[in-house]
Amino acid sequence: MDLRKDCNYIVSEAIRRVRPDAAVRRALEGFQFPSAGRLLLVAVGKAAWAMAKVASDCIGDRLDGGIVITKHGYSEGPIGNLLIREAGHPVPDFDTFSATEEVLALTDDLTEEDTVVFLLSGGGSSLFEAPLVRQTELQQITQSLLACGADIVEINTIRKRLSAVKGGRFAKHCSPARVFTIVLSDIIGDPLDMIASGPAYPDSSTCADALAIVEKYGLQLSEGAMACLMQETPKLLDNVETVVTGSVRELCAAAADACRELGYQPLILTDSLNCVAREAGAMLAAIARYHQNTDRSLAFLLGGETVVHLTGKGKGGRNQEIALAAAQGIAGLVNTAVFSVGSDGTDGPTDAAGGFVTHETYAALLEKGIRIHEVLANNDAYTALQASGGLIFTGATGTNVNDVSVVLIRR
Amino acid sequence: MDLRKDCNYIVSEAIRRVRPDAAVRRALEGFQFPSAGRLLLVAVGKAAWAMAKVASDCIGDRLDGGIVITKHGYSEGPIGNLLIREAGHPVPDFDTFSATEEVLALTDDLTEEDTVVFLLSGGGSSLFEAPLVRQTELQQITQSLLACGADIVEINTIRKRLSAVKGGRFAKHCSPARVFTIVLSDIIGDPLDMIASGPAYPDSSTCADALAIVEKYGLQLSEGAMACLMQETPKLLDNVETVVTGSVRELCAAAADACRELGYQPLILTDSLNCVAREAGAMLAAIARYHQNTDRSLAFLLGGETVVHLTGKGKGGRNQEIALAAAQGIAGLVNTAVFSVGSDGTDGPTDAAGGFVTHETYAALLEKGIRIHEVLANNDAYTALQASGGLIFTGATGTNVNDVSVVLIRR
Repeated sequence: MDLRKDCNYIVSEAIRRVRPDAAVRRALEGFQFPSAGRLLLVAVGKAAWAMAKVASDCIGDRLDGGIVITKHGYSEGPIGNLLIREAGHPVPDFDTFSATEEVLALTDDLTEEDTVVFLLSGGGSSLFEAPLVRQTELQQITQSLLACGADIVEINTIRKRLSAVKGGRFAKHCSPARVFTIVLSDIIGDPLDMIASGPAYPDSSTCADALAIVEKYGLQLSEGAMACLMQETPKLLDNVETVVTGSVRELCAAAADACRELGYQPLILTDSLNCVAREAGAMLAAIARYHQNTDRSLAFLLGGETVVHLTGKGKGGRNQEIALAAAQGIAGLVNTAVFSVGSDGTDGPTDAAGGFVTHETYAALLEKGIRIHEVLANNDAYTALQASGGLIFTGATGTNVNDVSVVLIRR
Repeated sequence: MDLRKDCNYIVSEAIRRVRPDAAVRRALEGFQFPSAGRLLLVAVGKAAWAMAKVASDCIGDRLDGGIVITKHGYSEGPIGNLLIREAGHPVPDFDTFSATEEVLALTDDLTEEDTVVFLLSGGGSSLFEAPLVRQTELQQITQSLLACGADIVEINTIRKRLSAVKGGRFAKHCSPARVFTIVLSDIIGDPLDMIASGPAYPDSSTCADALAIVEKYGLQLSEGAMACLMQETPKLLDNVETVVTGSVRELCAAAADACRELGYQPLILTDSLNCVAREAGAMLAAIARYHQNTDRSLAFLLGGETVVHLTGKGKGGRNQEIALAAAQGIAGLVNTAVFSVGSDGTDGPTDAAGGFVTHETYAALLEKGIRIHEVLANNDAYTALQASGGLIFTGATGTNVNDVSVVLIRR
């Protein structure tokens, strides 16, 4: 059972490190706050309240003011002297626009001695918006783009130009004040201009790109909207410092550190795994087989978010499928385990966070008459893992930075 | 085009090292031949002729005799003083039995000063057989086992006991002479007791295993057959030395060496990859993305044999699908390539050996109106790779030790 103990330790350490509180605290500790000027806080996103709470605990006594915008129902009460606002998600509403106006007013006329701590999490695109065209026109344009089959990059290229805060414009608005951005990322690969449409990140798309999209799909736009498209977004923001935290990369790094503490030599292979879950399981088993002759303990880590094709009516989740799919491929090896866990603590529609198997799981299940390929065909990994004691439970973790899958070879 | 040059070099070096001639020559050079006693050669399998030819070139002047058994039509003419025999494959025929009898006669009454060089390749199970029951009974038993749904391990457990040469018995027959076996492997993971049913390798299955299978499936066997099942196969063979060569492991090692020569730091992740081809491609791309910040050139290598689910009517093969499926995931990276190649030089029903893509392939294809997900849905990787100059051609290589897939990151 040592392998299971190791698994539990690695899972708990990894998730501990990516919880919003720990992540924001660590980022703030690494930032050199100026001694003079005003210090303001703006928190936007579904985790805005939790992020702002921690920031208030750390630097609340120095804050000259701030605004928190989170999703309707997501506020958990007052925080110091901060204004707490709730707004629409996934579709922006009037509360979005009025709260965003409050933020723009708070950050008007800043000087280069001032600092804005900007806390950004998922959902920010809808919660933080100041449209430069009328709301109905903005919605019509979005609808047309979707109807034409435009992809998300094309849609964002247009939409950033119709907004006073997206595509780096919020940071531009704050300049010459410094903007210290802490991003709690839940998007694989951390594309900073995509998270909440990048209010404080230079935009890589150009006016020419936007016009090409208009031509490509034959969009009919008002004069006002066309004028917006011709306004270039910021390409350089020298007043911004960004820390991405709580990302899947950090989840992997934390898991790797925990492996190292336990005596494994860890190797992170990727943090953007996006293939079919059971195929990832087969690959993890193939990696485990190749490294059986090692004389020291090894750990291979892969972060990301895999996909499950539902073909059955059983109970399970992508992490449970990864683990179970690896069980046959590592059967009969020596002191080898594969486990996979979702950082939000909820894998698929189950109460488990993920699954754990060892070199002994396949035989143990067979003895109970459970054949893994049948279980997988029915998407019923939960039941099989329950039978082999291979479910991982963490409870809800308050964060969601994708999954991490681990191969452990203990020597 | 440097990445393509690197790919071509790695492919040609890897295949060169696993060709039967190079592999057998290297193995023979590493063997200490005794100065006294007789030296006999037995070559069995689809590559027997080519293996025997090389052996004859190396040690022909010292050979006291030998027999080559290959598939009907696979002999390419006389070799020195060796007897050349052709026999049935995939079903053994009378030529199989008579040629095998000749081998057993040649290797009767050997002394401990004598040496048998035993060259084994794929197909040996059918080409080298001396049944201990009548041929029709043997066929009936095999049919019954297949009809019951017995797996290949169960079938072999029974069949080894009904043979005078399988399951280590040929080596036992040769003792006390030394048997130097060179195995040209085409089975993932090199299970030596599986290749040609292991004539010169200790058998891990027991009489008890065999009886359990008879009970499990309620097999009706003759008294003679039952008596055979009770005869234990050799568990220890101290007169045998075995070199596995030309295996997928060697293919990977050769490719890794070639990478190193070109300045890449290579890492072999597995030699038994067995998942769905396009999912492997997605995973290779995910690995490439994670390692973009490297300051030295890296190569990740995965050997094995992936699977393609046919959903369309296009032209392609598993290696071409791996490469093409990786193209989107590495789009826009820096100096990054993914390629995959089959060591037999024929990937699927095409004249290409595999496929090659870079960080530029996705955009190049899109410009030609080729959308990768549509191509993959139609299993038409060949056409897309042809359009992007990404087909790899090697011609028929004369060997088949699975595939190798490589991620190159050039810095």
